[in-house]
Amino acid sequence: MASGTVVDITQHVLAGNDAAAAENRATLDAAGVIALNLMASPGAGKTSLILATAARLRADGCRAGVIEGDLATRIDADRVAAAGYSVAQINTGGGCHLDATMVRGGMAALDLTSIDVLFVENVGNLVCPANFALGSHANVVVASVPEGHDKPFKYPGIYAAADVVVLNKCDLAALLEFDAVTFAAGVRLVNPHAPLFTLSSRTGEGVAAWAEWILGRARHDFP
Amino acid sequence: MASGTVVDITQHVLAGNDAAAAENRATLDAAGVIALNLMASPGAGKTSLILATAARLRADGCRAGVIEGDLATRIDADRVAAAGYSVAQINTGGGCHLDATMVRGGMAALDLTSIDVLFVENVGNLVCPANFALGSHANVVVASVPEGHDKPFKYPGIYAAADVVVLNKCDLAALLEFDAVTFAAGVRLVNPHAPLFTLSSRTGEGVAAWAEWILGRARHDFP
Repeated sequence: MASGTVVDITQHVLAGNDAAAAENRATLDAAGVIALNLMASPGAGKTSLILATAARLRADGCRAGVIEGDLATRIDADRVAAAGYSVAQINTGGGCHLDATMVRGGMAALDLTSIDVLFVENVGNLVCPANFALGSHANVVVASVPEGHDKPFKYPGIYAAADVVVLNKCDLAALLEFDAVTFAAGVRLVNPHAPLFTLSSRTGEGVAAWAEWILGRARHDFP
Repeated sequence: MASGTVVDITQHVLAGNDAAAAENRATLDAAGVIALNLMASPGAGKTSLILATAARLRADGCRAGVIEGDLATRIDADRVAAAGYSVAQINTGGGCHLDATMVRGGMAALDLTSIDVLFVENVGNLVCPANFALGSHANVVVASVPEGHDKPFKYPGIYAAADVVVLNKCDLAALLEFDAVTFAAGVRLVNPHAPLFTLSSRTGEGVAAWAEWILGRARHDFP
């Protein structure tokens, strides 16, 4: 009985979130902005990936903006602002994921006419963010080599929700005996089609191909 | 109105969990078992830490058992069983944390008379597990060097809930330019007293001191 009540409220919350996500998508499309929802464990390197990617996009004339989602602090937003990008900070106050209403607030704090690609850095969490659409054009799961190659098997929900998977910190693969074949097999088990990019934000290896994928997607949606 | 309803149900759920946690604690105390709730990001190395610690405890005649919490799979439980320890697997089916009722089920699947220390490996998540008491004697937050030194600032809730903090993968600190002073300052900002152990499950560095802390605690509670 109690659990039925909880389920009803959960469905209500998710339906309301989906409506707000659809509004966000319409706003983004009207502004010609492509948005990417970056989901990852704490410390997978989402902010470093955003900075490395945005620099590469900037070299091609593509302007990036960022919404930073955190429980607390402006650490990531300050790093992004220091690099010269437009950024809005969302603090969830302990909440374990972003939702579409929070992202709407972040979008309102940015000048969408001045950016082409919007990176939304979700709260570091491989579970809860997968359930909440934000209105983005693609869900990006960012894995990292030190987490180990078994994570797609152990967190199947978020890997299934990915439109693209980025494996970061590949410069540590040999040292940490990371098994790339097992990792890729785990991704494919729950997600047959998402492209998989292997890169290192630290060394720059592989970042060009990932940035090219974003540029190709932006051109396709906004020719 | 709707949000008031959600809060009421949340409080109801937490009160029910606290009651189940108190029952778990009574069961553990009656059996003379000390239980540790290990909380960490995905890939921080909880399972490797358990194996390295349990081996060290075994050398001192202290017998470890393990409850493995995962969204899915038996990967970690199989590793623990292969090393010769008693283990119970809990799959949350997508749930982002363990609760006391799940742990009660895991305890029932173990022979508590045959163990002295029970490691409870929570779901890999730095947010949600902090809110659910399990009946354990200590909350252990396991950080890892590749996650970066800013995590205590960004995930203050779980660091505040820690009775002890273990920093794993210290063998990578120099390579990854990990700032141990900043990390420790972040821990102290939200948690003035929790002991902090720095170690590497891979090399074994620092594991002895951490195991000694567990042994000291067990002796104190169960002389």
